Amino acid sequence: MNHSMIRYVLGTVLCFESIFLCLPMLIGFFCHEQSAFAFLICAAACMILGGLMVLKKPKRNDFYATEGFVSVSVSWIAMSLFGALPFFISREIPRFEDALFEAISGFTTTGASILSDVEALSKCCLFWRSFTHWIGGMGVLVFVLAVFPLRGGNIMYLMKAESPGPSVEKLVPRVKNTAMILYGVYTALTILEIILLIVTGMVPFDAVNLSLATAGTGGFGVLNSSAGSYASVHQVIITIFMILFGVNFNVYYLILIKRFKSALLSEEFRTYLLIILASGLLIAYNIRGFFASPFEALKHSFFQVASIITTTGFSTTDFNEWPALSCSILVLLMFCGACAGSTGGGMKVSRLIIMVKIAVKEIFTIKHPHGVKTIKLEGRVVENETIRSVNAYVVIYFLIFAASLFLISVDNFDFTTNFTAVAATFNNIGPGLSVVGPTGNFGAFSAFSKVVLMFDMLAGRLELLPMIVLFSPMVWSKHR
Amino acid sequence: MNHSMIRYVLGTVLCFESIFLCLPMLIGFFCHEQSAFAFLICAAACMILGGLMVLKKPKRNDFYATEGFVSVSVSWIAMSLFGALPFFISREIPRFEDALFEAISGFTTTGASILSDVEALSKCCLFWRSFTHWIGGMGVLVFVLAVFPLRGGNIMYLMKAESPGPSVEKLVPRVKNTAMILYGVYTALTILEIILLIVTGMVPFDAVNLSLATAGTGGFGVLNSSAGSYASVHQVIITIFMILFGVNFNVYYLILIKRFKSALLSEEFRTYLLIILASGLLIAYNIRGFFASPFEALKHSFFQVASIITTTGFSTTDFNEWPALSCSILVLLMFCGACAGSTGGGMKVSRLIIMVKIAVKEIFTIKHPHGVKTIKLEGRVVENETIRSVNAYVVIYFLIFAASLFLISVDNFDFTTNFTAVAATFNNIGPGLSVVGPTGNFGAFSAFSKVVLMFDMLAGRLELLPMIVLFSPMVWSKHR
Repeated sequence: MNHSMIRYVLGTVLCFESIFLCLPMLIGFFCHEQSAFAFLICAAACMILGGLMVLKKPKRNDFYATEGFVSVSVSWIAMSLFGALPFFISREIPRFEDALFEAISGFTTTGASILSDVEALSKCCLFWRSFTHWIGGMGVLVFVLAVFPLRGGNIMYLMKAESPGPSVEKLVPRVKNTAMILYGVYTALTILEIILLIVTGMVPFDAVNLSLATAGTGGFGVLNSSAGSYASVHQVIITIFMILFGVNFNVYYLILIKRFKSALLSEEFRTYLLIILASGLLIAYNIRGFFASPFEALKHSFFQVASIITTTGFSTTDFNEWPALSCSILVLLMFCGACAGSTGGGMKVSRLIIMVKIAVKEIFTIKHPHGVKTIKLEGRVVENETIRSVNAYVVIYFLIFAASLFLISVDNFDFTTNFTAVAATFNNIGPGLSVVGPTGNFGAFSAFSKVVLMFDMLAGRLELLPMIVLFSPMVWSKHR
Repeated sequence: MNHSMIRYVLGTVLCFESIFLCLPMLIGFFCHEQSAFAFLICAAACMILGGLMVLKKPKRNDFYATEGFVSVSVSWIAMSLFGALPFFISREIPRFEDALFEAISGFTTTGASILSDVEALSKCCLFWRSFTHWIGGMGVLVFVLAVFPLRGGNIMYLMKAESPGPSVEKLVPRVKNTAMILYGVYTALTILEIILLIVTGMVPFDAVNLSLATAGTGGFGVLNSSAGSYASVHQVIITIFMILFGVNFNVYYLILIKRFKSALLSEEFRTYLLIILASGLLIAYNIRGFFASPFEALKHSFFQVASIITTTGFSTTDFNEWPALSCSILVLLMFCGACAGSTGGGMKVSRLIIMVKIAVKEIFTIKHPHGVKTIKLEGRVVENETIRSVNAYVVIYFLIFAASLFLISVDNFDFTTNFTAVAATFNNIGPGLSVVGPTGNFGAFSAFSKVVLMFDMLAGRLELLPMIVLFSPMVWSKHR
């Protein structure tokens, strides 16, 4: 393994984080908040450490899958540790494990909080929480690739390891340009949402924070009621943008280069919209008795469906109180997740499509034992390599899920709490049901369970393998 | 598709069922019970219908995977319909959907009941419930193959479709002899259990019924307290036999032909025992506060672990009241299941071993992208065909589970009830948690949900594919 290259990537990430930390610092000083100093200290520490790590150029340039996975997982852990420090140093979150939970939850765009009263936080801390969503949504290494001339063997492996979906493609031949296009679309959409929210009358600070959290499909809000106390028009705007950020960014690229037909014909895109439409209508019908008008039922239903399928995790109402059918649909949507290549988490719609096609193929094989049937997605044959990796993903997903459920059960919460806590963190949603429902939080879990859930958040965001690779002795052995 | 061959197999199965139905009929007449006439009517109907179907020999002999799957699923559905009739005709279970649920639950060795008071049933009905477990445990078609000269293309497909596990092998070259060995061991172990229970003082009727239910890993009892009110010695005997019936019957064959070393070195066998030991000790420690002595805690813990992992479903106490850790372990064991080639349900230990190895291989591939690593089980290379089918199994399992959870949620029970109801029926266990816990039953579900759960029981027992093939238009289309 090329350790010097990993060190160099990590150093670069820390330098960038230092710059990111300056934003909440400025907001803090502007609002005369004490906590601004915490951000100053952390930004400085980050810059010094990162600077030291990038001083020496890497000896060798070779960079393969192992390096890609390890760089990404190590960077995310380091980023989270430094991201947690401001909360801890400012004493706004007094326990370090809670601060770390909050930071990981932010970067992984989970949005699960250990806080029972977010309104008590300072403005700079609130902004940092939302900003971590935005950074983590598209990926910090994709950002690094977009603006920094990181060279070396096959740097594409970095993007592969950080980006969600069963197969990651470059939009354009150069990785740097692909990363720039992605961040360009991402930034443009975020700014558009901020403007729309402000124009329709939202307080600018809330508009910025909610937009950053929507863009990253995170879910941290600035009010205790999440998105519940905003005007209907704001809730509708947020619903639309949540759905937009759950779309594969390739679709936006196709629109940019005016290939509208290819964009609209995308199999994953259409399946994603269909699932949202069907779930939204079904839940609206199921909860019609809870609200005064059909519009209210539809608004809350679609908001919640969009929030869960894109793994954002905002809520406008306590869906834990909804009928079992609605809760079950929401739990299933937690696993479904958004499109590959979006900022959303979960299993991803394209993986589900491939899974259904694997099932259909199996039935075909019974009737035609010697027949050959290829699996197609978006009109192209899915490579065996991808099918194998989807299968392995499902198997590993299942095993990690079972292990996590077992481990957090030591806290003795009810089964619904344990199951949905794992589902909500592993799929990067945020709220679950029962104790961890929209009005609850993760603060009651023991430090041990929080560590398990932190692992799940990271594993979920990085699509399992990077975190497993990091902890697998096989990869670290000298022999290769 | 060779319809005449499927018709012939179905007819044979019905003739055999007619003979099976005579046993409870005799018990009924012996005990002067009215319900005996219901069994008489059904046995006669079964014999007439079955006889008509086997009158004409099949035109062609070709018999492939499709025919195997369809024969098995159609036979099991017909068998269940006729098996339900005695309950319904005798008015002991007044609703037909409940009678059918009980019969399917019996044949599939699930042991989930809709009855709140089993002690109210007549002796012949109680015996029929237990006997369906015994018939379904090893499989009725395996029985047919053992005693009846069923000829045709590749009759092995029948056994493949009915027997559990990722790969089914013939122990000896001839299918008939393999089936005879399996049923021989099965019968011998059942008789041994009956004798042991009677010798230690159990009422013979209870001993016979419990042994039949243990052998099939079913779980229907004859008392409302399941196995809770029997003496400790009986509970220990039942624990041991549950574990024995969850072992791959190949192991017994190896012992019979004196290859003791191969038997004891079986990877699946040792993993299975290890899981039981670890889970049993962990739960015993977790529930130590609930019982007066460590022996009591160990007894209940191991009884419950054996009951759930072998998917039998007996209970000695209300484990729904146990701490969350114990409940989570039991829920995870529901999915684990017993060994392949046993009478137990669930995913099977060997599939789990293969799953873990698929995960390890995936990590290996990251480090050695061009390296070749084969997956081995029991010292032999697992064929790609088997790995593909395990992968497809996991994917289809996941999809059916999600669909079932969604569908039964319309009844508006809590999430734990819905989740464990599907887990308990799909894995052929019996009791779940909450409403469907050991002291509860499935009677409160709507007819619609019962149909969904019946499908799950059949799909679980027949390992997914036969039931899916039956309902897939692709297989029924003329074109082949």
